[in-house]
Amino acid sequence: MLNFTIGPVMSNDKVREIGSEQVPYFRTPEFSELMLESEELMKKLLNAPENSRCAFITGSGTASMEAVVMNVFTSDDKILIVNGGGFGERFVELCKLHEIPYESIDLEVNKDIAEDILKQYENKGFTGFLVNIHETSTGVHYNLDLISEFCRKNNLFLVVDAISSFLADEVDMSKNDIDVVITGSQKALACPPGVSIIALSPKAVERVEENTCKSMYLDLKNALKNGERGQTPFTPAVAILIQINARLNEIFDNGGVGSEIEKVAEIADNFRSQIKDLPFEITSESLSNAVTPLHPTTASAEDIFHILKDEYGIWICPNGGEFKDTLFRVGHIGDLTIEDNNRLIEALKDMQKRNLI
Amino acid sequence: MLNFTIGPVMSNDKVREIGSEQVPYFRTPEFSELMLESEELMKKLLNAPENSRCAFITGSGTASMEAVVMNVFTSDDKILIVNGGGFGERFVELCKLHEIPYESIDLEVNKDIAEDILKQYENKGFTGFLVNIHETSTGVHYNLDLISEFCRKNNLFLVVDAISSFLADEVDMSKNDIDVVITGSQKALACPPGVSIIALSPKAVERVEENTCKSMYLDLKNALKNGERGQTPFTPAVAILIQINARLNEIFDNGGVGSEIEKVAEIADNFRSQIKDLPFEITSESLSNAVTPLHPTTASAEDIFHILKDEYGIWICPNGGEFKDTLFRVGHIGDLTIEDNNRLIEALKDMQKRNLI
Repeated sequence: MLNFTIGPVMSNDKVREIGSEQVPYFRTPEFSELMLESEELMKKLLNAPENSRCAFITGSGTASMEAVVMNVFTSDDKILIVNGGGFGERFVELCKLHEIPYESIDLEVNKDIAEDILKQYENKGFTGFLVNIHETSTGVHYNLDLISEFCRKNNLFLVVDAISSFLADEVDMSKNDIDVVITGSQKALACPPGVSIIALSPKAVERVEENTCKSMYLDLKNALKNGERGQTPFTPAVAILIQINARLNEIFDNGGVGSEIEKVAEIADNFRSQIKDLPFEITSESLSNAVTPLHPTTASAEDIFHILKDEYGIWICPNGGEFKDTLFRVGHIGDLTIEDNNRLIEALKDMQKRNLI
Repeated sequence: MLNFTIGPVMSNDKVREIGSEQVPYFRTPEFSELMLESEELMKKLLNAPENSRCAFITGSGTASMEAVVMNVFTSDDKILIVNGGGFGERFVELCKLHEIPYESIDLEVNKDIAEDILKQYENKGFTGFLVNIHETSTGVHYNLDLISEFCRKNNLFLVVDAISSFLADEVDMSKNDIDVVITGSQKALACPPGVSIIALSPKAVERVEENTCKSMYLDLKNALKNGERGQTPFTPAVAILIQINARLNEIFDNGGVGSEIEKVAEIADNFRSQIKDLPFEITSESLSNAVTPLHPTTASAEDIFHILKDEYGIWICPNGGEFKDTLFRVGHIGDLTIEDNNRLIEALKDMQKRNLI
């Protein structure tokens, strides 16, 4: 199967080879060294300020979203949440569940954040800002510079969920004064799903240290303490952590984060230029390189997903809920090539010939 | 490396082959079908009563321990916890953290539970019982029949953490009236670490339904609801779930749970018979088939671990904390053979010749 979803995505040969090896015992100096190296590489890729830290959580991106909400905020905070889709809504639910005072900026679907919207929230006593910088559910990539500027001016603690944006779009902790970045193994890192990663600025580490977390599994203080010696508090997804380490090294060997983003952008641009004659509308007003959200004007999105899967051996990413019939997404992350794009375009053109779209 | 730890353990060729394949997209009928089959197979292996359910959690065994404490108990409960080692202590900490009233039965290290101990807790208003049936940290396998009988008599809700015992020792939910069983991917299931599994009796499902869980990631109500259609609320460790499915099918093809336990027992018995002339003492008074805990009488346990790793290419399982120097463990789960045992014994005999033990 050719995989254009937004995760799990396709992995390269090196990562898959590691998947075929025996999983090593991990309470060893060898594994500690590997983890310490991964932490350093992650920090470099994010241009994290000195004394930043990373925690590797065995769990989905939501596990890390919840860990961040529980560990860096308290009931004394007042958080602004960008809510323009399913993942923004998840941050709202998490703040509600953990009794963190918040207000949500409810954006129209497919719309970017704008200066005049943010202006309404100035000098209102907010202490933090939560944003899924790429709202994966609708493919809207929010204006990070604008958000960062707003947070700087209002002295807000900035948490950026970059699960599907890291390595596809620029995420620079130092440049944009980001305090926390969240990402996952199965997006542009192109490893199997099962691990999410949290990068914390020194200010974020301080918040974690001062806070008390009412979860053992999601306690970042414990994770950071064990991480000092390259270990995790509980048995992690060892194989995936080794795969992540290999990928991080590979990204540096291939020229670093800039080259990686360029590669994803090239696949995205090529795809977008090839769909001009197809009966699809790009829905988002601000695109990430990671994904193209498409509204099919002549057929049901769900039908297109099933036909591509069952008749052409290609996965695209379906939407659920209210967008089930009207929206599908094509991912540009993972081990994809221009030739893969061509195969998808050919399949879509064949469907057009068959009057299926 | 030859791996005699208690997890991650060695996987067979089939499981490793799956690890080398591309991870499929999972919001599909195909993956749902696989998950529903896994749930059925797990229930059969545990002889779970009708209408039992299973939840597959992407996370370590501790994630599932915490999920169970949070989802099946409330502050109206009063729980008895068997605390004879590190994992019993973890249940104590979890109940403390989540404000579940409890009392801990603090057992002497290496000792099994006994009738006269349990007797002291009769008619004291307890509602539930928590036990790591195989206290992995010290290798003590508690008497499940005794515990089960006590729970039946006192009408206690019985939670059995069988993380390292499932498929190594008998764990029969119907026979022993067990309400919840916890296990993990990286023990006798012999898949990579990253997934833990919770089996729930109808009574346990009812408790979950009636309870409110203050965690999104560990909310079993949500997990069970998604599980009805063979899905998970969040992106799971898809590859490991496929590996688990393959192993579950394989266990049935090879004669079922009895044959699997027999295989582990055979490896364990063979090892125990071969160490008679070595300067080791078996410390536990009640052994699981999964592991043999050994006290070396002539050398440091930690030194033995390092020498076997660095000079013989063999991992045994070291202990931490107070037992660092005095205890190591040899696992009998995973893709091990009698020939592997022979290799370990030869290495130990060679160390004896070299006066290292």
